[in-house]
Amino acid sequence: MKRQELISIIRKKKSFLCVGLDSELSKLPPHLLREEDPVFEFNKQIIDATIDYAVAYKPNLAFYEISGLKGWISLEKTISYLHMKKDRVFLIADAKRGDIGNTYAQYEKAFFDILDVDAITAAPYMGSDSITPFLAYPDKWVILLALTSNKGAADFQSLKTDGSYLFEHVLRISSQWGTPENMMYVVGATQAQQLESIRKIIPDHFLLVPGVGAQGGSLQEVARYGMTREVGLLVNASRSIIFASSKEDFAEKAREEAEKMQKEMEELMR
Amino acid sequence: MKRQELISIIRKKKSFLCVGLDSELSKLPPHLLREEDPVFEFNKQIIDATIDYAVAYKPNLAFYEISGLKGWISLEKTISYLHMKKDRVFLIADAKRGDIGNTYAQYEKAFFDILDVDAITAAPYMGSDSITPFLAYPDKWVILLALTSNKGAADFQSLKTDGSYLFEHVLRISSQWGTPENMMYVVGATQAQQLESIRKIIPDHFLLVPGVGAQGGSLQEVARYGMTREVGLLVNASRSIIFASSKEDFAEKAREEAEKMQKEMEELMR
Repeated sequence: MKRQELISIIRKKKSFLCVGLDSELSKLPPHLLREEDPVFEFNKQIIDATIDYAVAYKPNLAFYEISGLKGWISLEKTISYLHMKKDRVFLIADAKRGDIGNTYAQYEKAFFDILDVDAITAAPYMGSDSITPFLAYPDKWVILLALTSNKGAADFQSLKTDGSYLFEHVLRISSQWGTPENMMYVVGATQAQQLESIRKIIPDHFLLVPGVGAQGGSLQEVARYGMTREVGLLVNASRSIIFASSKEDFAEKAREEAEKMQKEMEELMR
Repeated sequence: MKRQELISIIRKKKSFLCVGLDSELSKLPPHLLREEDPVFEFNKQIIDATIDYAVAYKPNLAFYEISGLKGWISLEKTISYLHMKKDRVFLIADAKRGDIGNTYAQYEKAFFDILDVDAITAAPYMGSDSITPFLAYPDKWVILLALTSNKGAADFQSLKTDGSYLFEHVLRISSQWGTPENMMYVVGATQAQQLESIRKIIPDHFLLVPGVGAQGGSLQEVARYGMTREVGLLVNASRSIIFASSKEDFAEKAREEAEKMQKEMEELMR
């Protein structure tokens, strides 16, 4: 998907909500376990319930890989289902990959050709040649981890080097590898106060922001410090939407949560 | 596998060779493409041909994921095949994962319970809570990326912070998370001159060393600067062994290459 198309979808839906499909089998509503493919059935109903309010979906591959082959089937079916929707949405494979050279050529193909997602998340530690191969794909995106929302983020991301934090070096150096047309960054909502200085380094790049909702980050603060004239944000919510209820009304409750976030986003976009 | 068992296998086989199963479909000997599962057939023959000389095997998951479901079948069959061998070897899922909390609990299960490998490779960027969940599994290992053998390694790993390189911080901080009984580090052979200072920080940890062979690193130098009294090394070779020939004699040639490396290792272990 081109950047301009993503921006159009955001404007049209008045939303920058990304729904995280962290569809952990053990957390699914029990009545779905009777289905042949409970994870896909769950995703399908979540997608139908939330697509009016969401501009992006992000399956986290860990939750699919855990089931081995069955998980991959659920994942492929989910992505296909999203492709079949009339409503075009931005598809992110949350894979957090980071490997090099001859290996990475393989990942590209796996994610971009076979799954046909718009973006893949990646870790920066191995440097440029672990990322640039992805950037050669037209209209595909790499979303690089910069400042994550977990406690461990402090261990290395916030190390000071020449007066800058490591994550600021990551932003500065990696933003030379691509453009705001093919790179985004993960910046956790729990670190919203950092968004101001981050925007000085990358004023135009989209940010994928996890940590709103279950992890306690504030949507208001994220918008205040991170929003650009072109919005420039995808805010992800996973558990707070998809597991809003663990009963038969899970899809209805997910829809309510997504709508609530969309309404808040609509306000913030004014 | 316990550390002591790994050391025993190394002593017994007089080898610290890890064979990287980077079994890229497009590089397989053409006659195998007639098989129902060419990748598994290839791996099986490579394993049979090299197991006298190798103490570890490391499938790189990228090469399996690329084929989606079929790839996972090939991977699971390969791991099962290795488990069925009378010769116990150390199994590494080269996944380079790095995710947090509720997600990681899933990965653990996927790799340690279902695939039942001994170790998984992981990236350090997200910090302690992305790694420590793995360390709770008895007799399982995390192999953390420290200093990789690719060009991009210089982008961040060699940034200077408080007089140390970032990879030295990674070693120093992360070595507190576990012990030499459940953590190893990836250190590329192309950076063998760094092994001396690395050994000052982590004198006892095993190192998984890629980059010997196709990438040009020297086994002699790796042993000189990195070997400990308990050997403390697993040196990985992938392409130089598994693709030593692209014809019907590929397994025989792989055996010759593996034997050559084992002989060199036997010398170095004296």
